[in-house]
Amino acid sequence: MIIVLKSNTTADEKKRIIDKVHSLGLKTMVSEGVERSIIGVIGEEDKIRVQPLEAYPGVEQVIAVLSQFKLVSREFKPQSSVVKVKDVAIGGEEIVIMGGPCAIENLQTLREIAVNVKKSGARILRGGAFKPRTSPYSFQGLGVEGLKIMKQVCDEVGLLSVTEVIDPRDVELMAKYVDIMQVGARNMQNFNLLKEIGISKRPVLLKRGMMATIKEFLMSAEYILNEDNFNVILCERGIRTFETYTRNTLDINAVPAIKMLSHLPIVVDPSHGTGKWGLVTPVSRAAVAAGADGLLVEVHVHPEEAVSDGTQSLNTDNFEKMVKEVRAVAEAVGRKI
Amino acid sequence: MIIVLKSNTTADEKKRIIDKVHSLGLKTMVSEGVERSIIGVIGEEDKIRVQPLEAYPGVEQVIAVLSQFKLVSREFKPQSSVVKVKDVAIGGEEIVIMGGPCAIENLQTLREIAVNVKKSGARILRGGAFKPRTSPYSFQGLGVEGLKIMKQVCDEVGLLSVTEVIDPRDVELMAKYVDIMQVGARNMQNFNLLKEIGISKRPVLLKRGMMATIKEFLMSAEYILNEDNFNVILCERGIRTFETYTRNTLDINAVPAIKMLSHLPIVVDPSHGTGKWGLVTPVSRAAVAAGADGLLVEVHVHPEEAVSDGTQSLNTDNFEKMVKEVRAVAEAVGRKI
Amino acid sequence: MIIVLKSNTTADEKKRIIDKVHSLGLKTMVSEGVERSIIGVIGEEDKIRVQPLEAYPGVEQVIAVLSQFKLVSREFKPQSSVVKVKDVAIGGEEIVIMGGPCAIENLQTLREIAVNVKKSGARILRGGAFKPRTSPYSFQGLGVEGLKIMKQVCDEVGLLSVTEVIDPRDVELMAKYVDIMQVGARNMQNFNLLKEIGISKRPVLLKRGMMATIKEFLMSAEYILNEDNFNVILCERGIRTFETYTRNTLDINAVPAIKMLSHLPIVVDPSHGTGKWGLVTPVSRAAVAAGADGLLVEVHVHPEEAVSDGTQSLNTDNFEKMVKEVRAVAEAVGRKI
Amino acid sequence: MIIVLKSNTTADEKKRIIDKVHSLGLKTMVSEGVERSIIGVIGEEDKIRVQPLEAYPGVEQVIAVLSQFKLVSREFKPQSSVVKVKDVAIGGEEIVIMGGPCAIENLQTLREIAVNVKKSGARILRGGAFKPRTSPYSFQGLGVEGLKIMKQVCDEVGLLSVTEVIDPRDVELMAKYVDIMQVGARNMQNFNLLKEIGISKRPVLLKRGMMATIKEFLMSAEYILNEDNFNVILCERGIRTFETYTRNTLDINAVPAIKMLSHLPIVVDPSHGTGKWGLVTPVSRAAVAAGADGLLVEVHVHPEEAVSDGTQSLNTDNFEKMVKEVRAVAEAVGRKI
Repeated sequence: MIIVLKSNTTADEKKRIIDKVHSLGLKTMVSEGVERSIIGVIGEEDKIRVQPLEAYPGVEQVIAVLSQFKLVSREFKPQSSVVKVKDVAIGGEEIVIMGGPCAIENLQTLREIAVNVKKSGARILRGGAFKPRTSPYSFQGLGVEGLKIMKQVCDEVGLLSVTEVIDPRDVELMAKYVDIMQVGARNMQNFNLLKEIGISKRPVLLKRGMMATIKEFLMSAEYILNEDNFNVILCERGIRTFETYTRNTLDINAVPAIKMLSHLPIVVDPSHGTGKWGLVTPVSRAAVAAGADGLLVEVHVHPEEAVSDGTQSLNTDNFEKMVKEVRAVAEAVGRKI
Repeated sequence: MIIVLKSNTTADEKKRIIDKVHSLGLKTMVSEGVERSIIGVIGEEDKIRVQPLEAYPGVEQVIAVLSQFKLVSREFKPQSSVVKVKDVAIGGEEIVIMGGPCAIENLQTLREIAVNVKKSGARILRGGAFKPRTSPYSFQGLGVEGLKIMKQVCDEVGLLSVTEVIDPRDVELMAKYVDIMQVGARNMQNFNLLKEIGISKRPVLLKRGMMATIKEFLMSAEYILNEDNFNVILCERGIRTFETYTRNTLDINAVPAIKMLSHLPIVVDPSHGTGKWGLVTPVSRAAVAAGADGLLVEVHVHPEEAVSDGTQSLNTDNFEKMVKEVRAVAEAVGRKI
Repeated sequence: MIIVLKSNTTADEKKRIIDKVHSLGLKTMVSEGVERSIIGVIGEEDKIRVQPLEAYPGVEQVIAVLSQFKLVSREFKPQSSVVKVKDVAIGGEEIVIMGGPCAIENLQTLREIAVNVKKSGARILRGGAFKPRTSPYSFQGLGVEGLKIMKQVCDEVGLLSVTEVIDPRDVELMAKYVDIMQVGARNMQNFNLLKEIGISKRPVLLKRGMMATIKEFLMSAEYILNEDNFNVILCERGIRTFETYTRNTLDINAVPAIKMLSHLPIVVDPSHGTGKWGLVTPVSRAAVAAGADGLLVEVHVHPEEAVSDGTQSLNTDNFEKMVKEVRAVAEAVGRKI
Repeated sequence: MIIVLKSNTTADEKKRIIDKVHSLGLKTMVSEGVERSIIGVIGEEDKIRVQPLEAYPGVEQVIAVLSQFKLVSREFKPQSSVVKVKDVAIGGEEIVIMGGPCAIENLQTLREIAVNVKKSGARILRGGAFKPRTSPYSFQGLGVEGLKIMKQVCDEVGLLSVTEVIDPRDVELMAKYVDIMQVGARNMQNFNLLKEIGISKRPVLLKRGMMATIKEFLMSAEYILNEDNFNVILCERGIRTFETYTRNTLDINAVPAIKMLSHLPIVVDPSHGTGKWGLVTPVSRAAVAAGADGLLVEVHVHPEEAVSDGTQSLNTDNFEKMVKEVRAVAEAVGRKI
């Protein structure tokens, strides 16, 4: 922690700040600069982080030097983590493809989609039963009925399942039906939900909030690891920017950046990341080229009839073509599908 | 709803789209333009909103014409709403001042703050018992103990209370202790929480998400009104932008924009909206000049010792001075404190 | 300047960095922390700012402590500057109103507008002769002919003029016709233009870029002051954010923030800042309440016939009403119109 | 163009709007909806674009249906354009690598860099002689001297050159020394500069502004094509967002989006797009996987001694490694280096 003083800070003000730091059991090192003084704080930065030192008279700014995340960091665990869910390993050599509809609509449609995505190379079926929707008048999902359909289809077809949980009260229930619980972008900072999932010890796919920095994203993962649940798969799904041609701006930088900062696996959702099905395939190739460990893609047998997000869904033919193209890129970067 | 076709759309594609619209019980009006055709959809736009028409071959874009919000709109209710909580009316002639610490720390400190803010003109005491924090290692609030302290202080001093609820499981409990439940920026799209609060029929202060558009903000309020709870107070608290000098960018435009679009009262939180106590007073004056119905301000007897957000808290002297300056502006715009 | 080292930096790497700093004539102070070392650099920060120290092996990050702006800062000049242009003082007690059309269209229309805005209380006439337009097919302004009309009208009616310069080659020409040269948002970092205006010593109204931070904005002003031209009036005109309901998001925080950081006067452009004429009046009141020294407002006798930006222009009746309301707020904050 | 009326628009107001449209030589088609009326405008949208119809009483919003860009669009020219500069073709099968320092420092350093980048596979040498810098106190480039060095090195080593032009007065001069003129992000909307380059007919690399939408970017290219200069290479270099871990957010979506909207070639600048040399290689792979036609990369023999942007520059070893990895990806997507 670095405390920068104002140019006109008095000796008394400076002393008061230094005394405060010492009272927390930390050491200080004062640098008398040409224009202003700087106080370096030595010791556990966490002790002082909760103190609003900027509120002290004479302080111009306080600069944190260390990252706040610990368990998720590469410093804590230098080797990359592989999250194993049954027979699928996320974060290993294989690029794991997850495909399926935005929302689970009925047994027959989901089964048809599942058979197709499996054939094309997917290992995990995605599909929402509880849908967080901007409008109370939009389709809110089939709920528990959807979970049952999901489980039945996955058992039949031989796929794992990933589906979103939006309420801490549902975690226990979900655990009975699904392999991987997804925390959506809107819930990235629903901390009680994160804690419940942490306690459940179940695999979780944590999506980045649309306005969350990379560091805030990792701090949310830290909540789950802090409950001793290390089965966390991160997911970059685009951030909100001024650009309106695409639904979101997929932050491709975040993929290698997170690989540097954290040991956790990261997958990419090109469907929400672009919002336009015509962009999904090239952006999927890019994601894998950048180092992503998997893809989460919206697929529908009839996107134009989907009850949600059809605009950004691939049909099954385009999905097959996408996997094929991505496979070539995966091999070029030493991975496989 | 306007459906713009591509310049090379075939007659078959066009027919398929029109048939689809008709099958939903809606009428179409086709305009054959110089460069491309446009299909106007006549009837209830909601019927078609759930259909991903952009996924149909031949469609270039689909443009929604009507707003999705109904109950919150001025069209639905032209006169401004006044939310009455005991003896305080928010949205009337009076500018309602809400002040208090970020987090409730202990009985004595809260009481001292409460006495001071009341003396200066505040009607409502703010203070968090359940704190959503970016880091799992930060202070998470006193929980129920905090609620009890809040209630005791408000009863003693004669103030109403507003405090944040972060979990749908807590709504019933909170209702016993607090006058106004606050939904924080991070939970603006925690739809199950919104529904629970709607069902509770209790007054609610709904904060705009840092990444939410004005229209999304109003849609979240719609969730609460849709449960037949019209006691909603909106709160602009700054949005996230590229600017880093301030913690957030207070969206002053949103105040008159929301007054035009909606009948609900709106207050402003200049503490989170700026993140710097030195900016709170001028921005408070601006908020009231722009038409805000109240202010939600962080105040502490010793900001430099506050366990949370001290950097943006006013001390009691500055709070008193702020209210005085805001009162002069309020009178200039025909309001009072 | 603070140099934070990685946790695994070697002694050799550390030595190399320290030697580099010393070779620039600066001193270092090394703090051996629990988790990593920090090197404080003592001396003129500018010497080291141009060195990409982050490129040295072993460096995690480099944190600048001091602001880069000098001449524009309050530390350099603690008292507020007043820019005097003929009989008008910007930055003094008076709130200076500047009104007029987006683009100069013809003599008669401009004269009619000028008579009206003067009557309502404006001191300065705005209007563009050279228009930077997103599309090459949009109206590009009348050019020199527009400047002549501007001068004639101002002389007749008794107003000062402000108009935009978009090309360094035009500075000398503009100086013959206009009182204040405006640098538009798109040219805030057209550094050669800034230098030419600096050299001209003429009063300048410098608009903030739509994606410029407050600090970058002040650095652009620094370019002008660095040519010994202190006649700079800053103008907040809204920044680009994710919000699309308004054309820009007026950054009200920037007004008091700039007042703290700099001695230069600052005015607000509520027309571009909102993009909707219905929001101009409340946001104008807010700007003055926040401490702005003036307003730059688009006004037209027939906004619906304006060749540019009619959507955000006030008609003359609404302009008169706006000035009246702003005057009440100005008096409430100890200013006058 | 679609004109949406308010729900309470009067018949007179509606008539006035329709008359206005007709007076411009356009036809209207009125749709009387359940909640409000909509006026469709048929004919050349450009005629009406300059009219601020939203300023008419009774109008709620005006929605443009057609894009404003013409010459740059795929509709205008369905086949992809290949820009040929001497023996290098940008937009063809080959991925064109452009490498070199941020700023030209001296003959020897530039020569050393040039020899290295050529050996690794680059075809074009980049390097700035005129540098637009945020601060007037930063290194502003060698100017003409730099251009001469650039030409000498390129002639010797056998590379083409690309360098930035920042002033319309310099275009003629630059044309003598350099093969491709670059328009930097800050000048993307310096329309007079664009026009001068258009008139010069010289190849130009146009960078996207950090605050520019994809459509604004294409409109700026339109300025150049409108002067009958079709030798335009677009360059995505990252946009400004709320994320601060990286210098910019590289908009990977923009690559395939622009390929859909326009026939012009597009290259990617991963150096500015990330701001961190450790991210340049994975993001370069991603850019080529997404369909980019080339890369513009900062390279230096000693990044830690570079006078500008060393933090984001690759050293020559890492550059060689980058090209190798990108080549594998290029082949996976049917391209070559």
